Amino acid sequence: MDHSDLPHMNWRISERARKLTSSAIREILKVTERPEVISFAGGLPSPATFPAERMREASERVLRDSPAAALQYSATEGYMPLREWVAARYSKDGVTIRPSQVLIVTGSQQALDLLGKVLIDAGSPVLVETPTYLGALQSFSMYEADYVQVPTDENGLIPEGLTPELTAGARLLYAQPNFQNPTGRRLPLERRRALAAFARTSPFPVIEDDPYGALDYAGAPLPTLLSMAPDHVVHCGSFSKVLAPGLRIGYIIAPEELHFKLVQAKQATDLHTPSFTQRIVHEVVKDGFLDEHVPSIRALYRDQCAAMLSSLERHMPEGVKWNRPEGGMFVWVNLPKHVDTMKLLEAAVADNVAFVPGGPFYAHEPDLSTLRLSFVTVPPARIDEGVARLAKLIRERL
Amino acid sequence: MDHSDLPHMNWRISERARKLTSSAIREILKVTERPEVISFAGGLPSPATFPAERMREASERVLRDSPAAALQYSATEGYMPLREWVAARYSKDGVTIRPSQVLIVTGSQQALDLLGKVLIDAGSPVLVETPTYLGALQSFSMYEADYVQVPTDENGLIPEGLTPELTAGARLLYAQPNFQNPTGRRLPLERRRALAAFARTSPFPVIEDDPYGALDYAGAPLPTLLSMAPDHVVHCGSFSKVLAPGLRIGYIIAPEELHFKLVQAKQATDLHTPSFTQRIVHEVVKDGFLDEHVPSIRALYRDQCAAMLSSLERHMPEGVKWNRPEGGMFVWVNLPKHVDTMKLLEAAVADNVAFVPGGPFYAHEPDLSTLRLSFVTVPPARIDEGVARLAKLIRERL
Repeated sequence: MDHSDLPHMNWRISERARKLTSSAIREILKVTERPEVISFAGGLPSPATFPAERMREASERVLRDSPAAALQYSATEGYMPLREWVAARYSKDGVTIRPSQVLIVTGSQQALDLLGKVLIDAGSPVLVETPTYLGALQSFSMYEADYVQVPTDENGLIPEGLTPELTAGARLLYAQPNFQNPTGRRLPLERRRALAAFARTSPFPVIEDDPYGALDYAGAPLPTLLSMAPDHVVHCGSFSKVLAPGLRIGYIIAPEELHFKLVQAKQATDLHTPSFTQRIVHEVVKDGFLDEHVPSIRALYRDQCAAMLSSLERHMPEGVKWNRPEGGMFVWVNLPKHVDTMKLLEAAVADNVAFVPGGPFYAHEPDLSTLRLSFVTVPPARIDEGVARLAKLIRERL
Repeated sequence: MDHSDLPHMNWRISERARKLTSSAIREILKVTERPEVISFAGGLPSPATFPAERMREASERVLRDSPAAALQYSATEGYMPLREWVAARYSKDGVTIRPSQVLIVTGSQQALDLLGKVLIDAGSPVLVETPTYLGALQSFSMYEADYVQVPTDENGLIPEGLTPELTAGARLLYAQPNFQNPTGRRLPLERRRALAAFARTSPFPVIEDDPYGALDYAGAPLPTLLSMAPDHVVHCGSFSKVLAPGLRIGYIIAPEELHFKLVQAKQATDLHTPSFTQRIVHEVVKDGFLDEHVPSIRALYRDQCAAMLSSLERHMPEGVKWNRPEGGMFVWVNLPKHVDTMKLLEAAVADNVAFVPGGPFYAHEPDLSTLRLSFVTVPPARIDEGVARLAKLIRERL
């Protein structure tokens, strides 16, 4: 069958679907669900942080007080009190965000899908960090984006790299300034200012994807790009890392004109995000719960991060480098260039320890000697054991 | 701005987004939320049918018994016990549906989006009924489908019309054989057989979208196309009309090879449908609840449909024609050809009665003298009053 990769069906599929390939990493990582595997591969928040009892009370209240509305079709834009809550939360320091700019989405992965749908044509240049979030590459590839990598160093994206030559014809720039997945990097204040200035004059939006912003260990967030250039930045947020990901509630803050297009696209995509889960989230957050809850998540992740950094220090051989995240869920590790982390993963899994190789996070020319470690779901003693095993395997390859 | 329809932003948007236009009907219908308006415009199920107490118990149980799993990220394919339940429900009369064919989606609107993503390239011919479901046109248009209308009469799609000339190069045929939205038509058994035979030899799938199948008033369903050609039909189902739409739980049953592509596409679209709401639905349906619950919905809709048909009989002038649905939520009305139902809607809304004009349900060459009436949310006395008002306005136009 030359025109399809459904070998047993005589059906043609789309060009975008033909390019979808099965992930070798995903296949290898399937075995990491075995309890004996120490997995640093997950991107999952720790379930110890889920406020299950609050959720139970909230869902009880929602179904008692407004069952018909919670179970009926509802507006594509989202549940208005939740939109108002989001707008109020981002309205500070002289910046006003209007509820009419807020679209509630089915997890922030859907934010990326909708932005791709509304902004990207087949072959459109799309600017991404080096490396960048794999899930964004997956979403934008569905719209056949032509990726352009923006120069990046250990502090993240380099605004001076955004030359007219590099950015010509781009439809969007996609960035995670806070504790980026996969590198854990946070963009410094000066670069934020430069990137906001760039956004103000560029003929395409800067997408600020910010699932991890609340997880800065010191509780001292840097200003968002949105706050610096509210008319030129599209901000994506999520309750997945501060409440629970299983509810799939995220949001997009965008200028109204783009918001309106995103609403139309969402209507064609899933009509609306479930009314019930939106109301539960609003019920949980409306009285300031996040302000008491998020510090406990930060403290847990800070301690686990410290444990991992100290284990890396203790076990890793000379020539292995890693960053010291100020927040978020990930550490980024650079091995000597000749070590292929994809092959390392196979050996590691055989030795009951897992991580994610860095290659798939690059739009082009991957650095195959990189890897991502998550520390949020593994207790400190196991972190040390896992890092020790990994260090031994790396040492054998040097 | 010649390249964008964001008049105040200098941002380019995608071709598909440029084609999105604001719906005049939607604007007019916004006023129908006023309580004095008798609205036959809704496509909403009656909230009187929502089993809110069961939902409350189920959500309580889910959050008590498995809070971490219900609130955590979960598999893109969906919650396995729910997939197994769906597979078992469709496995009968010698047909076996495997759980590995079932993908849980965020309402069946998402089924259409994912099928478009995986099957349609810009300019791909897509076969649709005449008229067809507006939401399907919205979804497939996001992938720039080139629609081809299949000949249709008062019994629905005419299988003999599927000539090699008409169907050449098509990527899919989209049909709602049961109580179609907007016409309420049910495809007769003989035509189902012919369409299943067509599916078995055609080089593209027949999509059987079946949100209303359980709502046949006599409780005597006709066999699905899926049961007649399980390897050649993709079946979309939903809990929206038999439980509650606000949970946004639907499913796609497809051959595994296509299923696998749909899963990859869904991963890039919203990662997965909320674990929590999937588990609630499974908890509610697993012990046979639908078999006791759905007959009460059927009985309610049958009575309201009968009330509307008798009001139409009583009030409508000569020359107005409508069908007698055997199930579902809609009656389709044909006025004399010179009456434009779009203009009629403006007058009707001024007179506090609403419906949906038929034009937008056609992919091409709309019949502007048609309209859709829904009877499910209006009590019989109000139905009669609303139909009387509408009949008066029509009479004035003859």
